[in-house]
Amino acid sequence: MKERVSIARIAPGATIGILGGGQLGRMLAVAAARLGYRCHVYSPDADAPAAAVAAETTVAAYDDEAALTRFAAAVDVVTYEFENVPSGAAEIVSRHVPVRPDADTLATCQDRIREKAFLTGIGAPVSPYRPVTGADDLSAALAAICRPAVLKSARFGYDGKGQVIIDADTDPVDAWTRIGCRASIVERWVDFRMEISVVIARAGDGTMAAYVPVQNIHEGHILKRTIAPAPIAPVLATAATDLAGRIAEGLSLNGVLAVEMFVTWDNRLIANEMAPRPHNSGHWTLDACLISQFEQCVRAICGLPLGLADRHSDAVMDNLLGDDVNRWPLLIAEPGTAVHLYGKSQARPDRKMGHVTRLTPRRDA
Amino acid sequence: MKERVSIARIAPGATIGILGGGQLGRMLAVAAARLGYRCHVYSPDADAPAAAVAAETTVAAYDDEAALTRFAAAVDVVTYEFENVPSGAAEIVSRHVPVRPDADTLATCQDRIREKAFLTGIGAPVSPYRPVTGADDLSAALAAICRPAVLKSARFGYDGKGQVIIDADTDPVDAWTRIGCRASIVERWVDFRMEISVVIARAGDGTMAAYVPVQNIHEGHILKRTIAPAPIAPVLATAATDLAGRIAEGLSLNGVLAVEMFVTWDNRLIANEMAPRPHNSGHWTLDACLISQFEQCVRAICGLPLGLADRHSDAVMDNLLGDDVNRWPLLIAEPGTAVHLYGKSQARPDRKMGHVTRLTPRRDA
Repeated sequence: MKERVSIARIAPGATIGILGGGQLGRMLAVAAARLGYRCHVYSPDADAPAAAVAAETTVAAYDDEAALTRFAAAVDVVTYEFENVPSGAAEIVSRHVPVRPDADTLATCQDRIREKAFLTGIGAPVSPYRPVTGADDLSAALAAICRPAVLKSARFGYDGKGQVIIDADTDPVDAWTRIGCRASIVERWVDFRMEISVVIARAGDGTMAAYVPVQNIHEGHILKRTIAPAPIAPVLATAATDLAGRIAEGLSLNGVLAVEMFVTWDNRLIANEMAPRPHNSGHWTLDACLISQFEQCVRAICGLPLGLADRHSDAVMDNLLGDDVNRWPLLIAEPGTAVHLYGKSQARPDRKMGHVTRLTPRRDA
Repeated sequence: MKERVSIARIAPGATIGILGGGQLGRMLAVAAARLGYRCHVYSPDADAPAAAVAAETTVAAYDDEAALTRFAAAVDVVTYEFENVPSGAAEIVSRHVPVRPDADTLATCQDRIREKAFLTGIGAPVSPYRPVTGADDLSAALAAICRPAVLKSARFGYDGKGQVIIDADTDPVDAWTRIGCRASIVERWVDFRMEISVVIARAGDGTMAAYVPVQNIHEGHILKRTIAPAPIAPVLATAATDLAGRIAEGLSLNGVLAVEMFVTWDNRLIANEMAPRPHNSGHWTLDACLISQFEQCVRAICGLPLGLADRHSDAVMDNLLGDDVNRWPLLIAEPGTAVHLYGKSQARPDRKMGHVTRLTPRRDA
């Protein structure tokens, strides 16, 4: 485990660089502005949602070394709003300015082989898995871990992209072809009762603040609904929070991390995936907590003390995917509902266009 | 009273123009972005706090007709973040695009003589007053309304600027000189128990949503603390809310209005001032309500249904004036406190640099 070190404080008035200009960057920029920071968004997309709320925007490709260098020179710290930022881009930027969470964390989270090895290494419960680099590999792995299983590309997978289900009849050669003949992992299919996640922040001095575990309901591999808190026994909630804490510690995280877990029918937790950034399953914190996941991220990367991760209300968050967004006139008329729209002009199928949060009084204390 | 008319809906994705670039514009722009709107800020100040969170900014003087015309052509609706926008600027803009609240409302609220006449006209309780246009006028008025009194310039007064206290010994000629020999009102001094305010939104279809009355504590004429809800009897809270509603109706308001009132020692309400925009005494709604005063303003001016003005928590809001802002490291470490900083570089004495909101569980239902 890496050493705990305090980081220098970056005071309000400074400029935070954000690699990526999507809705996570947008909400991060707004949280940064609330604390008096300026944001500079770096995005290949001229119409990036985050650009509309940022003080500065650089529109350039992730492999444009000159643009990345200028960007790095113009900001005081850099973070990223998705973990598939090319590691080369983060590396170029990190020569000039701190990148938080750091390059090691990014590398671990953007490659499933490294991710699983890390989780296994810290003793986190994971589904039996094997790295796979060819069809023969895959056959041997399936013999070892048993079917049904799921083959996942090691890199650039999200929202179910880069996954192939392997059932009793699936031909390994066919599966290997369908995954694109690229480095992957295969893991035993988990027959889960519930998917949950924990969003946790870890400051430069090692202090942590975790939001309550939430239940996530997916449709077609895309998050549809988050229920906060997850309807699970307190002992499981504590275990999930502890697991997220161990992962954050193990990464020497400086920032915000989301850990997705399965709850099995026999009430075991299995760590599934992690993302070193604010997460869709933490959007409810914007409306149900005094300090949101986005503000925690800003506090963590700027060396400020974390806020309380307490909630004042319970919440249900629903993503507005694709044409869902056309229901906005009804949603906005609904009492007790907060509507968040990301300012995207094209409502492509399954594209995350916004979300709504419905609050109810907090049931426990 | 003007007719109730529905206004056409301006859908998310449209651009809201904001005259003025201070912290109110900044928080308004963030609320607009949450609903998927773009904002275009018009400000004479190149370093305006609102510019850092707006999609577009025009830096130009309020009498630059060409710049105002270009601004109006680039937006779908215009609002203003302070009521001292020169009426000429609003007039130029309104030739091209709706200005909300409308020019009549702006004119009424930016001139104390019109404001008092309006309040008197709708039967609102006000302190006895007289318009004053010369020292002789002032002497006669003082004889009629009795001392102690306060002389207030009709225009461009805020935060105690443009006010002269008139006690038993004050020479009217001297007071008239000190106010700058300009159109004014003189009103009888109110010996109040408490200052309160009500922030109310009124939609284009006439529906209204009022936040709970709050207590305001001033220091040197500048708001220092807001306590939500105000510690007053329910009957007074209802009367204050009703009064704000009558004022909003009387103005045919389309937007958000703050009404400042005195509570006298014998539990009467006296309407003091009003501002046709989100107000410092409504900042607590950002943290204690699902729908803030800024979002209500956006909803109102865009023809959307208003949200609930319910609070989920009680709140105390403290302004950070001038060097107060240097306490930010302590404040940010305080559990249960939300820190809002406006990104202003110069902490001049009494300048509003930020605010903090402390939440407590809601005590009543």
